[in-house]
Amino acid sequence: MFQTFFGSRVQTSKPITTIESQCDLLIIGAGPAGLMAALWASRYGIHYRIIDKRPMEILKGQADGIQARSLEIFESFGFVERVERECHMSVEMCFWSPDESKDEGIKRQDRVPECIPGSSNYGQVLLHQGRIESFLVDAMKETSDIQVERGVVPEELRFDRSKAEDHAAHPITVKVRHSPEEDAAAPREKIRAKYVVGCDGAHSWTRRQLGFKMEGEQTDFVWGVIDLVPITDFRVIADIRQACSIHSVSSGNILLIPRERKLVRIYVQLTDITTADGTAIERSNIKSEMILEAAKTIFHPYTLNWGYIEWWAVYQIGQRLSNHFDDSNRIFLAGDAVHTHSPKAGQGMNVSMHDTYNLGWKLCSVLRGLAHPSILSTYSAERRTVAQELIAFDHRFSRLFSGRPARPGSDEIGISVEEFKAEFEKSLLFASGLSVNYAYSALVAKPANTNNEDDEPQALLAKNIRLGMRFPSAQVLNQADARPWQFSRFLRSDGRWRIILFAGNIASTPQLDRIKDFCSALSAPTGLLQQHTASSQKIEMLVEILTIHSSPRQQTNLLDLPDLLHPFDKEAGWAYEKVFVDDWSYHQGHGKAYEKWGVDPERGCVVVLRPDMYVGFVGEVEDAEGLRTYFAGALLGRKE
Amino acid sequence: MFQTFFGSRVQTSKPITTIESQCDLLIIGAGPAGLMAALWASRYGIHYRIIDKRPMEILKGQADGIQARSLEIFESFGFVERVERECHMSVEMCFWSPDESKDEGIKRQDRVPECIPGSSNYGQVLLHQGRIESFLVDAMKETSDIQVERGVVPEELRFDRSKAEDHAAHPITVKVRHSPEEDAAAPREKIRAKYVVGCDGAHSWTRRQLGFKMEGEQTDFVWGVIDLVPITDFRVIADIRQACSIHSVSSGNILLIPRERKLVRIYVQLTDITTADGTAIERSNIKSEMILEAAKTIFHPYTLNWGYIEWWAVYQIGQRLSNHFDDSNRIFLAGDAVHTHSPKAGQGMNVSMHDTYNLGWKLCSVLRGLAHPSILSTYSAERRTVAQELIAFDHRFSRLFSGRPARPGSDEIGISVEEFKAEFEKSLLFASGLSVNYAYSALVAKPANTNNEDDEPQALLAKNIRLGMRFPSAQVLNQADARPWQFSRFLRSDGRWRIILFAGNIASTPQLDRIKDFCSALSAPTGLLQQHTASSQKIEMLVEILTIHSSPRQQTNLLDLPDLLHPFDKEAGWAYEKVFVDDWSYHQGHGKAYEKWGVDPERGCVVVLRPDMYVGFVGEVEDAEGLRTYFAGALLGRKE
Repeated sequence: MFQTFFGSRVQTSKPITTIESQCDLLIIGAGPAGLMAALWASRYGIHYRIIDKRPMEILKGQADGIQARSLEIFESFGFVERVERECHMSVEMCFWSPDESKDEGIKRQDRVPECIPGSSNYGQVLLHQGRIESFLVDAMKETSDIQVERGVVPEELRFDRSKAEDHAAHPITVKVRHSPEEDAAAPREKIRAKYVVGCDGAHSWTRRQLGFKMEGEQTDFVWGVIDLVPITDFRVIADIRQACSIHSVSSGNILLIPRERKLVRIYVQLTDITTADGTAIERSNIKSEMILEAAKTIFHPYTLNWGYIEWWAVYQIGQRLSNHFDDSNRIFLAGDAVHTHSPKAGQGMNVSMHDTYNLGWKLCSVLRGLAHPSILSTYSAERRTVAQELIAFDHRFSRLFSGRPARPGSDEIGISVEEFKAEFEKSLLFASGLSVNYAYSALVAKPANTNNEDDEPQALLAKNIRLGMRFPSAQVLNQADARPWQFSRFLRSDGRWRIILFAGNIASTPQLDRIKDFCSALSAPTGLLQQHTASSQKIEMLVEILTIHSSPRQQTNLLDLPDLLHPFDKEAGWAYEKVFVDDWSYHQGHGKAYEKWGVDPERGCVVVLRPDMYVGFVGEVEDAEGLRTYFAGALLGRKE
Repeated sequence: MFQTFFGSRVQTSKPITTIESQCDLLIIGAGPAGLMAALWASRYGIHYRIIDKRPMEILKGQADGIQARSLEIFESFGFVERVERECHMSVEMCFWSPDESKDEGIKRQDRVPECIPGSSNYGQVLLHQGRIESFLVDAMKETSDIQVERGVVPEELRFDRSKAEDHAAHPITVKVRHSPEEDAAAPREKIRAKYVVGCDGAHSWTRRQLGFKMEGEQTDFVWGVIDLVPITDFRVIADIRQACSIHSVSSGNILLIPRERKLVRIYVQLTDITTADGTAIERSNIKSEMILEAAKTIFHPYTLNWGYIEWWAVYQIGQRLSNHFDDSNRIFLAGDAVHTHSPKAGQGMNVSMHDTYNLGWKLCSVLRGLAHPSILSTYSAERRTVAQELIAFDHRFSRLFSGRPARPGSDEIGISVEEFKAEFEKSLLFASGLSVNYAYSALVAKPANTNNEDDEPQALLAKNIRLGMRFPSAQVLNQADARPWQFSRFLRSDGRWRIILFAGNIASTPQLDRIKDFCSALSAPTGLLQQHTASSQKIEMLVEILTIHSSPRQQTNLLDLPDLLHPFDKEAGWAYEKVFVDDWSYHQGHGKAYEKWGVDPERGCVVVLRPDMYVGFVGEVEDAEGLRTYFAGALLGRKE
């Protein structure tokens, strides 16, 4: 299905027999963040290792919430259908609070969609972290024979900072033990690596070696979480398959999240759990029975029973952020290792995967000699900002769920249903992962010092394609065979940059001339394409050009467009899969793609997507120089 | 993903060491028809064997056209996404004929969609038969360890017709050689079987053993077919990715079918190929160069070259039909073994799979003791009619493609573009496989002796759900979690019958009472459900009830509906996945399912689907007696 960046499969390095070894990239931790880094490395054909101290995969508990943005990323790696087949889709959120018409009990007060309609082709779904990890592992296998090494524990990290600027060097040495248990006789190995990525969780060993600090606060809110198959008459069973927040008058709060396999995850606030004599119970002494008892009380007058309990845990809410995300751009931290927060918004697994989705292609591009090492600094810049936003979001979100309901009349401390609903709706875009907006850098050609590019000329060219944000999808037709597609199907995470040429109305000769000029400028010896590839290499391996025009399909001839837009191969003929049209389809209506993207259907524009599908550049079709400058800031020059 | 009919995986029988063995079902031939039969047997947990004389799978050539109806069947077995990922979708057909504005050359005169918009969620696609076979084999593995035995050649068939009515007997003995080559020393095995299905192709060994005759005609039209990756300027390359018919003035005709992997299949009429001295060339002497030369001439003035030729063949059109489809309802023939015709309409693989899709569940139901052996006779009745229609269709279709274009002015022999287009459009519904309409039988409760049920009272209950035809899909929402679904996702080929209860407006008390009465009648000791299952068995394993109501989702409580419609399990709680609603969705609009199906949203109705999703019964909600009678005609009574 997939080809690697250089076409051949990556072979496993020799079995570990030596006490010392070397690799380009060492990934510590094989959770979602570590596996996402490994998946990129597999796609780019990097010589990497991925180790995890746990001897086994995770089978239950842990994370389960998957955002729309994560599903888009899974689509780009080719396995989103596997998630869709097994997941529970969370369509609606219901708000329950005290029933004011009675003296007791709770009432459903309102409901809202869990995902903003039209924001993505995907919504919010639930599927156990272990399934996601196994999909990531299977996707790795498509382009690499490298496997996760489990039961391998890091014991010592050394970093020769004097070589931090030498990107050919292996300045990091990690000593590992090939045994999950403490065992002096277990084999040890010293792994020398060019780069290390620590994805080893909230108690990150890597972070402690680097001496980074988690900064933030711990609240008093103690919550229990339990996965069970409920048997209940809660709102005559329907709401048990909807996400629900339940605020009781004085018995605490519940967040209820239906999951796959008829499971429901119930988060229960436990702050007020006390022993018989009224003293608070220590967190470590809380048992599952207490969580269930508290839940039953909040559910009243509905009943809560269960056929099967799969997993449970107790946690205290804290929002904390590491003071650094990297050491000298050679050792990186990602995921829970650098940000911890409440699990209730279902953000953890997503933001963690997005960290390494951001880092992975940059590291691999540098390792393959394609990109300037300077781009590595954008990882901390881009992802630490997101982590800060996440912490702020979680702070607000946790307060919402942990507060008590407002009493009728004026009550400034309690939270009213209206306030709750308004806050929840505000949080939806952030929670979907679609609002991430990376700031100006070598990789995002927008005005420095502002995220508000609305007044800039680029913003007028493509009103809904925002610099620094992910590229949204729309339905287009293949010009040659008229098949309708979501354009996102062609934005594959295969390591390539993409120039999206909105060719506009090519039935007009002046516009077609602009497109021809654009292609000539790109193909010229001093042009962008000649500058950034080895002479032996096809440019399509590094930068793919996809064209979307707005002329009527049936009146357009593919060969009228320059060859560059549908390259010729003497065995395979012309490429038919690179030119699309925004037109009416027989079976699926009109995609209105230009309108959705906010692009002028006459004049079009040029958009550059980074390998992670974030928008790096938007310009006029004439702006070959802007394009050249943009790529020169990220990619290395031609090698003969 | 799937469970078998009785929950446990089927194990492979012992390795063949004995000279005699026994199985319930022997399938001869592992092409699409044989594998479809095997897939059913795997789902029902039948002890079956499937043998094929060829030592290897097919890797190129052969069939590639896949109809909408076949894709619906693949969806029901859970692998349609695999086809969609690899196939070419054929959206449009272009008609080329002589360019009358000039003295020579051809011109695109018109185009039409290849599939009738709105007729199915799927269209016409192309994917090599070998891929389809491997998807079928993978699907078999989900519920069985039985594998295709290749290189096994049948040598002798004996059938003890005196035991034809004894369905516990093994009246058929097939002697096989475990070697693809003639070899006296190769091991032989005598397989005794209850039933045999011969899917061994146009030259069927099984058919010859039974002495059945292929009846029909052979025409003079000789065609060549070639799979290649073209390099051409044909209509400036766009049309080479559209299906095209090309009628030249006097150089013959082409049918051009783009396929997956940039391949194009070109059918070229070769009738007029002669040697230098003008005598016709024998079919067996035709070479690929001659096909290509003829194609080039027809293409003129466009060029035709190629980067790669994958496969080619020569055939003579004939439409022939076997005089029998079964012997005593113990030995059955299916696929090319009973009908041969031109490959150009892309029907062969489809109709062959549909033969055994029809036969498989019936045989398996009888073998499992669930259904009356008498239902087996519906196979020949239903499928021989389809085969006759296919032959008639192919006759018309071949004439279209083999005729010469009409000359300007009056020309009764030639075919005008208008006539061609009109005939082609008429053929679309048949070609999609969606127009199959099985006649009255124990399995189709419609008036005998007519296929026109429009005047019957059932037709008024569900105007677009036609007795004897496949059940069409529509978008509905899950009542409990509001997720939108194509209803077809729940019509899985898992061996179950389905009662689709259109519950209508259950917000109205009288209507809800009708639904309650319906459920009581079904559940009563003398009711349908108690009559047809062993007491230890859950009724849902044999008949699944799916409910679709039309009241507003947000005002409906699942528990208001009788338990029968969302059965309770003490471990898993209530079933949330069986009640749907025709309502508006946040992200995908309103399915308007009742309107699409033509069902009264107030009163609803009851529809029964056979395990192959053909409509067997339509009745009023009160018609428990009609329902009972229908099932009594097909299913055996209760076993204690």
